[in-house]
Amino acid sequence: MKPFGVGKSYKTKMEIAKKIVECVPNFSEGRDLDKIEKIVAPLRGKEGVKLLNYEADKDYNRVVVTVIGEPIAVRNAVVEAVGVAAGLIDLTKHEGQHARMGATDVVPFIPIKNMTMEECVELAKEAGAMIAEKFNIPVFLYEEAASAPHRQNLADVRKGQFEGMPEKIKLPMWQPDFGAPVIHPQAGVTGVSARMPLVAYNIDLDTKNIEIANKIAKCIRNSSGGFKYIKAGGVSLEDRGITQVTMNITDYSKTSMYRVFETVKMEAKRYGVNVLGSEVVGLVPLEALVDSASYYLGLYNFNMDKIIETNLWE
Amino acid sequence: MKPFGVGKSYKTKMEIAKKIVECVPNFSEGRDLDKIEKIVAPLRGKEGVKLLNYEADKDYNRVVVTVIGEPIAVRNAVVEAVGVAAGLIDLTKHEGQHARMGATDVVPFIPIKNMTMEECVELAKEAGAMIAEKFNIPVFLYEEAASAPHRQNLADVRKGQFEGMPEKIKLPMWQPDFGAPVIHPQAGVTGVSARMPLVAYNIDLDTKNIEIANKIAKCIRNSSGGFKYIKAGGVSLEDRGITQVTMNITDYSKTSMYRVFETVKMEAKRYGVNVLGSEVVGLVPLEALVDSASYYLGLYNFNMDKIIETNLWE
Repeated sequence: MKPFGVGKSYKTKMEIAKKIVECVPNFSEGRDLDKIEKIVAPLRGKEGVKLLNYEADKDYNRVVVTVIGEPIAVRNAVVEAVGVAAGLIDLTKHEGQHARMGATDVVPFIPIKNMTMEECVELAKEAGAMIAEKFNIPVFLYEEAASAPHRQNLADVRKGQFEGMPEKIKLPMWQPDFGAPVIHPQAGVTGVSARMPLVAYNIDLDTKNIEIANKIAKCIRNSSGGFKYIKAGGVSLEDRGITQVTMNITDYSKTSMYRVFETVKMEAKRYGVNVLGSEVVGLVPLEALVDSASYYLGLYNFNMDKIIETNLWE
Repeated sequence: MKPFGVGKSYKTKMEIAKKIVECVPNFSEGRDLDKIEKIVAPLRGKEGVKLLNYEADKDYNRVVVTVIGEPIAVRNAVVEAVGVAAGLIDLTKHEGQHARMGATDVVPFIPIKNMTMEECVELAKEAGAMIAEKFNIPVFLYEEAASAPHRQNLADVRKGQFEGMPEKIKLPMWQPDFGAPVIHPQAGVTGVSARMPLVAYNIDLDTKNIEIANKIAKCIRNSSGGFKYIKAGGVSLEDRGITQVTMNITDYSKTSMYRVFETVKMEAKRYGVNVLGSEVVGLVPLEALVDSASYYLGLYNFNMDKIIETNLWE
């Protein structure tokens, strides 16, 4: 059947233009459940703030926390959590598979509903200023909030990690956006950004050989010649005896999940390696999954309005 | 990363337990756009009623309309549309690829939010009574609203179609639930039901040979030995030069879209026929698509809460 008429005639009179922001702070603690609970505690039970998810990884020694809610309330709650993390995490003793520069490594703000990117950038700047002032943690703005082009890319900001930061932060190119050019002795520095929703996506490879994961990551990531909106690397998951290609899809509407998945499968074949499956870290936008379902089922004449639930949420 | 803690601490104080029902009336007109517009007109601009979609098919000579909203408002608007259809569609002159017994062939009510199946059954009975009384159209309740087990299955109720109904309706087994046992001369009879959301799904085959589509339909449908929750048949789309396996997936949570799709592909191979793609008719529940995306991407550690948007509508 080809649809020739789609009618939407009745708009709810209760159309409240409430702004919703998402914030996905990453903290450098993935093993001590007690510490993690203390860090997320300020995100619970606050008016206008909804703690959606937190996922810790022992290998990465990192936890990814997802909150949504009203911009000011979210900003304040997250800043409070950053303060708790600074008192609990000692980076001089930290090791893990994931690059990090701070006890709170990154604080990205993402527009979800009735918010512009400009508003998110403002929110990021406010949060950055608060973090530096309250906790003496220098702050680097990155992505859409970046104060200069060379500071846009998180990987460039974080290069050298916590250990290299005391020297780096004295360089003219790497003066913090907020705070003095002196790292917090235990908490390091924190990156704060505004960005579009990304998909944090890991693809499991049935091999312990990290070289293979690294090679495949190079094939798919932008920097080495891969897809424009992929940042990727290889990682070892020793307790599971496998490796992963771990990635951020920074624009899922242009570089689709299924395309990367199929490409990884295709590249893995050359090594005789199977792809075991994949996982999303944190939350994923609906469109990203529907786009992949659409591809695999060869769906035509489809759009998001055909999903019942999208019509309940206005 | 393995999630070990998921926190949802803040529930909106504005939790209104508003009931939402979906109704998917099918009318036996798929070619005359003017008539279709008149039939859907009562579904527009009514408080508490949202016209989401209507899809007409020339080959089927049928239009599938989807509305959601508050139960009483939806019931009343749909009954009004049934009245309009009765005045416009003359089944004595109707031909099309899809079985039909009425100008309004079926009126299913589906619980979407804060509604029980029992409440939908009540709503179906009210609507059925109204249709019979206002328009002299006999009504058969089916599916969850059925008044006897042999009347549950729509195919059994509709067997013989419009042409066979004048005789059938006189049989003791087939007395209408509402109205006298005399068909409406132009509008026939109407089936009214309550049911779970189904997925109306068509898979395109790159062949004009209807026998192949029919054979594949037999492989996948419950009645001939296929999947429990599939009702299917073959259909010719002559203007496109292809055939389709057309189906209803009556419980997508148990018989998944991807499973049927892959099975049809597998069966089509024996005839050297390609599957060109597929389409959803009307609306589809989010879970059905996400389930398929999950399969193809080998997603583990996934649940619906990980979709950002599901956290916005409560």
